[in-house]
Amino acid sequence: MRDVQNERDSRKIPIDLVGVRNLSYPIIVLDRQQNEQRTVAEISMAVSLPHHYRGTHMSRFIEVLEEFQGKVTLSQMEHITEHLRKVLHADRAEITFQFPYFMRRYAPVTNLPSYSRYDVTFWSQKSDTFDLVTTVSVPVQTLCPCSKEISEAGAHNQRGRIDISARMKNFVWIEELVEIAERCGSAPLHTLLKREDEKYVTEEAYNNAKFVEDVLRDTALALEAEPRISWYKVRVVSSESIHNHDAFAELERHVAHGGSI
Amino acid sequence: MRDVQNERDSRKIPIDLVGVRNLSYPIIVLDRQQNEQRTVAEISMAVSLPHHYRGTHMSRFIEVLEEFQGKVTLSQMEHITEHLRKVLHADRAEITFQFPYFMRRYAPVTNLPSYSRYDVTFWSQKSDTFDLVTTVSVPVQTLCPCSKEISEAGAHNQRGRIDISARMKNFVWIEELVEIAERCGSAPLHTLLKREDEKYVTEEAYNNAKFVEDVLRDTALALEAEPRISWYKVRVVSSESIHNHDAFAELERHVAHGGSI
Amino acid sequence: MRDVQNERDSRKIPIDLVGVRNLSYPIIVLDRQQNEQRTVAEISMAVSLPHHYRGTHMSRFIEVLEEFQGKVTLSQMEHITEHLRKVLHADRAEITFQFPYFMRRYAPVTNLPSYSRYDVTFWSQKSDTFDLVTTVSVPVQTLCPCSKEISEAGAHNQRGRIDISARMKNFVWIEELVEIAERCGSAPLHTLLKREDEKYVTEEAYNNAKFVEDVLRDTALALEAEPRISWYKVRVVSSESIHNHDAFAELERHVAHGGSI
Amino acid sequence: MRDVQNERDSRKIPIDLVGVRNLSYPIIVLDRQQNEQRTVAEISMAVSLPHHYRGTHMSRFIEVLEEFQGKVTLSQMEHITEHLRKVLHADRAEITFQFPYFMRRYAPVTNLPSYSRYDVTFWSQKSDTFDLVTTVSVPVQTLCPCSKEISEAGAHNQRGRIDISARMKNFVWIEELVEIAERCGSAPLHTLLKREDEKYVTEEAYNNAKFVEDVLRDTALALEAEPRISWYKVRVVSSESIHNHDAFAELERHVAHGGSI
Repeated sequence: MRDVQNERDSRKIPIDLVGVRNLSYPIIVLDRQQNEQRTVAEISMAVSLPHHYRGTHMSRFIEVLEEFQGKVTLSQMEHITEHLRKVLHADRAEITFQFPYFMRRYAPVTNLPSYSRYDVTFWSQKSDTFDLVTTVSVPVQTLCPCSKEISEAGAHNQRGRIDISARMKNFVWIEELVEIAERCGSAPLHTLLKREDEKYVTEEAYNNAKFVEDVLRDTALALEAEPRISWYKVRVVSSESIHNHDAFAELERHVAHGGSI
Repeated sequence: MRDVQNERDSRKIPIDLVGVRNLSYPIIVLDRQQNEQRTVAEISMAVSLPHHYRGTHMSRFIEVLEEFQGKVTLSQMEHITEHLRKVLHADRAEITFQFPYFMRRYAPVTNLPSYSRYDVTFWSQKSDTFDLVTTVSVPVQTLCPCSKEISEAGAHNQRGRIDISARMKNFVWIEELVEIAERCGSAPLHTLLKREDEKYVTEEAYNNAKFVEDVLRDTALALEAEPRISWYKVRVVSSESIHNHDAFAELERHVAHGGSI
Repeated sequence: MRDVQNERDSRKIPIDLVGVRNLSYPIIVLDRQQNEQRTVAEISMAVSLPHHYRGTHMSRFIEVLEEFQGKVTLSQMEHITEHLRKVLHADRAEITFQFPYFMRRYAPVTNLPSYSRYDVTFWSQKSDTFDLVTTVSVPVQTLCPCSKEISEAGAHNQRGRIDISARMKNFVWIEELVEIAERCGSAPLHTLLKREDEKYVTEEAYNNAKFVEDVLRDTALALEAEPRISWYKVRVVSSESIHNHDAFAELERHVAHGGSI
Repeated sequence: MRDVQNERDSRKIPIDLVGVRNLSYPIIVLDRQQNEQRTVAEISMAVSLPHHYRGTHMSRFIEVLEEFQGKVTLSQMEHITEHLRKVLHADRAEITFQFPYFMRRYAPVTNLPSYSRYDVTFWSQKSDTFDLVTTVSVPVQTLCPCSKEISEAGAHNQRGRIDISARMKNFVWIEELVEIAERCGSAPLHTLLKREDEKYVTEEAYNNAKFVEDVLRDTALALEAEPRISWYKVRVVSSESIHNHDAFAELERHVAHGGSI
């Protein structure tokens, strides 16, 4: 059977990335409390292709995924990406896993438990070097300092989210990034709140008014203080309750710790 | 050329609806202020198919759309739907146009103008009788009465929306349905607000605390009072600022006006 | 602390449904092969509210979900829905769980395994009676009989999906509904195909040309033949490769088996 | 009234971008045939913020948008972005307009007209220098050369899309980028096709089998040949009809014309 993909190509155009996207697959990730967590990832896997090959072999991406039996940990990302690179004979391989991640949370007064959902992305690239970026998207409440200051009573507040992307020198748990983000909004969100909890979080947010700029800077300060992180990007989005559009703020920084990298 | 669709089918299964979906097309709708408004619709068009025909003729749906040159008014919906029914030789035809609709809005204190977006749907069905449902989706702010009552200061509030669907005895403008909805939240949303406007809407919402149930009932009362409406369905959704999920409430009613229908 | 929700309401408007939506939560469902499968659901839970109560108690929905520890089986749906109804003192309760469900699939020639994703919805309602609808959404390939007939070579084909909703007299596995759907397209989809498999499915689809109307009727015939099903609704959507819109067909039927219900 | 945003900030963290997102607004763009086209944009507008300011003034973004009365042309992008920068006293301003754009298309045999939808993005950044990237997303059909080669009859084909992003030395019409993309798939898509047209496009695609890699390279070659373009990025995505995931390929290149820039 003719191998059309393997034919020589004369157009002299190397391809940066070729592969599969929008692939939904069950995966298993590390969970700080439960050891492991089963979830569902949206996956992208791709490689570079030299100018003289006509096509890549799409089925091998799925075979690589099958070989690892869905086990996706930060420490295993390098093995998977390198394996993909080798199997496809490529200079460079790139993989993205995006998945919901659930953590047990406790209401602030009644201490009642429920699950909170966070969205996590592992992105990795392997060529001569290895690069890995972890992103967590954490919903929070933001309460507007201007609205509080100028109004006789109340202050507009809303659901927002903090997206933290980080490159690490040493392993940082998803849970740790989530906790940094939840400390930096006006108040964290909870799935289950009884009346006494609702009073608590309403007052917590009111006493902790923050613009998206404030949330962004406080998150940045917390990440600067973390010696295991060498680079970060933060985006804060606030779904303004007085508008039908969102406010946002973002920044990206290399961390200078006197340390390595 | 053989007409495969026109072949006889022996499976004895009539089809409720067959047609096209997810069709994006420019349309022109009536605008109370500007006479007409150009916008972009997502369209579904379908007909019933008797058991003895193998297939419908998909290209004719687009031809019908082209004939009307994108002019989609409530009063023209019956003509378009009836025309579709005839062209496809069907017992029943059904059409949906869903589109963003913009209205000029003025900030409550500075009176500065900006556009607000509403999402509108026209759904129609024509067989022996004609049926037409208009839906407007209107973003509003909701402020929680419980949070306000139990907290020392502040109250959680958030973006929500009111979806009103209505069957009419006499013509009602999109603008009128939008205005009913905007009066029934804790406060309307605005795209452009200066500081004095922000103070105004913050206090307006705080002084007008409403559960989704309150917003729903107030909208229902306003619709009951409107003699041109014979049936309505309302759904209120509130993107709770203290949770990562939404609260919602809905109800559907025929209006008994001593009038017709 | 004042219970604002519990106050009397004088607007005399009963509410059809009030509750929570867009709630993402980890759940465990039955798996025919693996006994159970962990996945992530988008959940809606609601109850009716009599006219004289101002509000429902939103936190109790989450408490009910927590009590069942995420175990969601078709047979347990009645218990959960009834429990929700009792806890909220309501006439009627309604729950929707929507989740991705993965099944092991084997390439048709090489027999290589991979996961296929299906989207499943359990919807239930409990008042004096209990009602339960199971929906599976199954991606398939469709190949156009008209295009095949009139063209010298080739035929346009595309990804489509078959959504089957069913009410059951006796338990039917998700797997069984998926298999019915996969038999009724022009060819099933696979996540992993080697070249010999690709040849197989290309020819399989070409030799099995079907309009959306054909796919719909064949699925209907298969469901009519299943004595455990008392009612079904089928929608077929085909993402036409020659257009930028979709073709679709749908029908809904009560099954007359001489049996009960 | 206190200006909280204008307060000094002591955290010493400059912000890369702060502004508004997910803003839906009516706009008017240039149309090669019709002179202008009214459409609906999703807009993002942002500026950099020095470390010593606490917040930006969100209402001014909307005021800038209002000043230009929704007129968004490629040549006006620099004025708008520079104006935003000045009004916000910022070093850098960044704007994104994303909108559907419709072009009249004619069926290949019957010549019947209909609208095709393309998605267009204008992104601009102004600091000391000005940067502008135009992106068009063009749906096409792709037909698999491997499937065609190895199968006795037929070949799997599907809807795909080509996203072209370009930086220009001289003005290029949206229409020109769309036409480049439509020439580079296996066949262009049409909204309205009669039977003789369907035969034509089925055979056109079958005789023009292309992998995503082929589509990518042919698009790249066409862009290399265009002296008005100084940089481009192309992504091709193909919604494989035999899989439930997509294949994709992408590359990014500066064009060396011996010309300027």
